[in-house]
Amino acid sequence: MRSHILGNIELDETPLSRDLEYLSAVPRGEEGYDEFSNGYWKNVPLWNASGDSGDDLYRDTDSPAQLTEHGKNTGYLRGLVEKVFDTDRITMVRARNLVDAVVIPHRDFVELDRDAEQYFRVLMFLEDNPAAFHSNDDTVINMRPGEVWFLDAGSVHAAANFSSDPRQMLCVDFAFDGEYEESDIFRDPAHYRPSTDARVIDRPPLPAERRAAIGDLGKVVDRSNFKEFLFFLSKVHFRFDVPAEATYDWLTEIAASSGDRVLVDKAAELREYAIGARELSERFSINSWN
Amino acid sequence: MRSHILGNIELDETPLSRDLEYLSAVPRGEEGYDEFSNGYWKNVPLWNASGDSGDDLYRDTDSPAQLTEHGKNTGYLRGLVEKVFDTDRITMVRARNLVDAVVIPHRDFVELDRDAEQYFRVLMFLEDNPAAFHSNDDTVINMRPGEVWFLDAGSVHAAANFSSDPRQMLCVDFAFDGEYEESDIFRDPAHYRPSTDARVIDRPPLPAERRAAIGDLGKVVDRSNFKEFLFFLSKVHFRFDVPAEATYDWLTEIAASSGDRVLVDKAAELREYAIGARELSERFSINSWN
Repeated sequence: MRSHILGNIELDETPLSRDLEYLSAVPRGEEGYDEFSNGYWKNVPLWNASGDSGDDLYRDTDSPAQLTEHGKNTGYLRGLVEKVFDTDRITMVRARNLVDAVVIPHRDFVELDRDAEQYFRVLMFLEDNPAAFHSNDDTVINMRPGEVWFLDAGSVHAAANFSSDPRQMLCVDFAFDGEYEESDIFRDPAHYRPSTDARVIDRPPLPAERRAAIGDLGKVVDRSNFKEFLFFLSKVHFRFDVPAEATYDWLTEIAASSGDRVLVDKAAELREYAIGARELSERFSINSWN
Repeated sequence: MRSHILGNIELDETPLSRDLEYLSAVPRGEEGYDEFSNGYWKNVPLWNASGDSGDDLYRDTDSPAQLTEHGKNTGYLRGLVEKVFDTDRITMVRARNLVDAVVIPHRDFVELDRDAEQYFRVLMFLEDNPAAFHSNDDTVINMRPGEVWFLDAGSVHAAANFSSDPRQMLCVDFAFDGEYEESDIFRDPAHYRPSTDARVIDRPPLPAERRAAIGDLGKVVDRSNFKEFLFFLSKVHFRFDVPAEATYDWLTEIAASSGDRVLVDKAAELREYAIGARELSERFSINSWN
């Protein structure tokens, strides 16, 4: 199932801006999945499995999730979530921010117990940012504030914010046992209003000269700068019409032409970790060579 | 005056490891100079102008500096600093960590009131890390724990840690009015034992093919990935025998061959900001294009 708009929520700017201010001031902790991103990435749990504000690892849990201290301190968002969504089905709610950064193409939920289809992730931008994108397979979108998006997190996806401006959003995770309709995430089915009126980014084909120059990066890539090239490659599909997954094809190609066997292995491991099958809490270090 | 070893302090591992553990657990705040680095960079003020634990901006101050909460919680380091250095001359003491990251070549103190020679910065590694380097003009060094280094922060310098292991260190800043001897930083002149026995890194010349490939990066650089190429270029001099400043020559060159006038301007501004004359607290954003 592809990512799409499930509904559209009217946001009340005044109380929302107070919550956004609070969330901006929460100090950023060490992120559980730091190696997937460069730049500034912050996850603030509002509801989670433990109710502990410092616990930001998504894991399988029996719903309903527990409200955290941060959830209690963002009253408008709490009310919004409780009014719009079926909180009995919620496993986690996070406020997320990504600034001047890219999250490399990856798949989620591959490490968990249930089939990926039993997990349902919803994203909603809380502020407009025309330089902030999500990708999903062969589509790149810019979400409008209030749009409730189903993100197919089990398929290859990525995110980027090419600006230094924030783009705070809500990430709401649901889990189901057995069959369900996507409208089941809403408390009131009237909120379920799927739409195809999305800001899809029109991307030109990747020019042949640029494609060749990407291949030539094998002449400068080495262990000391592998990460920079990974982030560089992860950004290409946001601008040109290539699938997100091509990131790993190019990485494999430049690792091979570098002549360093350790880079070849790292590229293969990274592809497997990011878009293959990784274990829960298994840590992968992009930049460790032992 | 070039960077050199001023003395050598015997570190007591057991109480030191307790302080290092405390410092590791201090949450990383938003760094005042975030745009100079990628990866993980943390500055924990132990002494500063205000005594406020959250205040990490270096600024001119009448010595002596105030002990912060973090300084009080790291008793071994506090005792060490008070025993070894003339605390009346200290303006700031920070515990710093840099992991899997590079700090781009820059000059410090250019924005302050006194002549750069009136500022005296001392670095001391608190743990061994063979993948952690400092550069200063045409020299790259790996500091041994306990070595007290004068760092010529007014000249072009950079730092990198190519590993995922920490390299915690102390950064002690002194300020003087008028003439002084470098031995004046020590409480007991017996600690002043300059040495040339440093771990200087032997770097091969930059191969012509790699130099040419760096120039070719103009074919792929654009506003969306300028930062990755800046960090890539900043790392080259740690491995090959070129001056740190060459980073900005290459950046200028690839910006010019990209054909994007905005990149050309950004490269010029960045060079001026990093190694020219910037204003105190002037914020420069590498990745803002307005």
